[in-house]
Amino acid sequence: MANEVIFEAVITTLDADGAVHVAPFGVRYDGRQVVLKPFKPSATLEHIRARGHAVLNLTTDTRVFASAVCARWLGEKRWPDEALELVATRFVPGLRLGGPLALAHSELRLAADDDDAERPTLRLDRVHDATHAPFPGFNRAQAAVLEAAVLVSRLQMLSADKIDAELRYLQIAIDKTASAADHEAWGWLNEAVARQRAQREAAR
Amino acid sequence: MANEVIFEAVITTLDADGAVHVAPFGVRYDGRQVVLKPFKPSATLEHIRARGHAVLNLTTDTRVFASAVCARWLGEKRWPDEALELVATRFVPGLRLGGPLALAHSELRLAADDDDAERPTLRLDRVHDATHAPFPGFNRAQAAVLEAAVLVSRLQMLSADKIDAELRYLQIAIDKTASAADHEAWGWLNEAVARQRAQREAAR
Repeated sequence: MANEVIFEAVITTLDADGAVHVAPFGVRYDGRQVVLKPFKPSATLEHIRARGHAVLNLTTDTRVFASAVCARWLGEKRWPDEALELVATRFVPGLRLGGPLALAHSELRLAADDDDAERPTLRLDRVHDATHAPFPGFNRAQAAVLEAAVLVSRLQMLSADKIDAELRYLQIAIDKTASAADHEAWGWLNEAVARQRAQREAAR
Repeated sequence: MANEVIFEAVITTLDADGAVHVAPFGVRYDGRQVVLKPFKPSATLEHIRARGHAVLNLTTDTRVFASAVCARWLGEKRWPDEALELVATRFVPGLRLGGPLALAHSELRLAADDDDAERPTLRLDRVHDATHAPFPGFNRAQAAVLEAAVLVSRLQMLSADKIDAELRYLQIAIDKTASAADHEAWGWLNEAVARQRAQREAAR
């Protein structure tokens, strides 16, 4: 198959001052290594290059994904990084996501850095893996929030009609199977869509 | 919230002869209990009532879901129950899903049975929980296979145009992020759609 198997995770890094940076990230696994291909400019890329470490977080809390992708349109993260439940890592300097929806994390060390003008490839070794809670099963609403987050990250490239049609389709899974957390994330995403339209109208 | 948080799992039961029955199932969690609401007629319902036990399987192998939902149109399960990798359970009589994509299972005992003409409510206690592999993160292609499985389970109620439009949308995530297993599941689902159309044409 020509495509790559990509999993939607959350990468946490520390900046030069030790402040946490929380970024949703599509990651690949290659044997025991985690492969990241950040688009420049990327704070995650800068932090990993400066410090040599990162943390891979596997969570079903869709608010972390929605908060990040909506920040551009809402002017802020509705879930600021500093307000998240964070736990100190054990084998590399860092912070991992905590809370009941944090299922697993891996503490990572930079192993190879293949630079590129647009999209370098970082390979990281797993120094430590930990599982915190069992996978509860697929949830259609969580998947719908992630799809809407992809739409919101591409708002400027898509027509309003296409966005509306896809949100209507995704709304079905939200109505049928969403948790309170997923409803909250869904609300932010719809707010971001409305805000982007208002800004576009105002700019005309 | 008026909706229920539903997770897509796989329930394995044993029939009177001890043969395994593998059924994708939308489940709810209520405290430590697992709640099932099977639509009659349901082999899973009959087996649980006869034996008092079931196994909740949490897997990211979308082929298990697709195989079951396509059986009606393809005339068979492309992944027959007996051909699956199955492991004996420890605390209740039964079999659980094995293999690298089986993330967790719970061995269940029937605790309460609220009968209904169409859709009884079964409450099951967890006798034993086990985690086998960490959650690898959300994968958009897996979610797309599950959405297509929902479509295929409702083929007779939906217009061909609606099905085509939604499959085209879901295809994007398949092309970008699917594993070989997810491609296989996706192929069965598209085959089921084609088969149902051919049957409908032939019946005219």
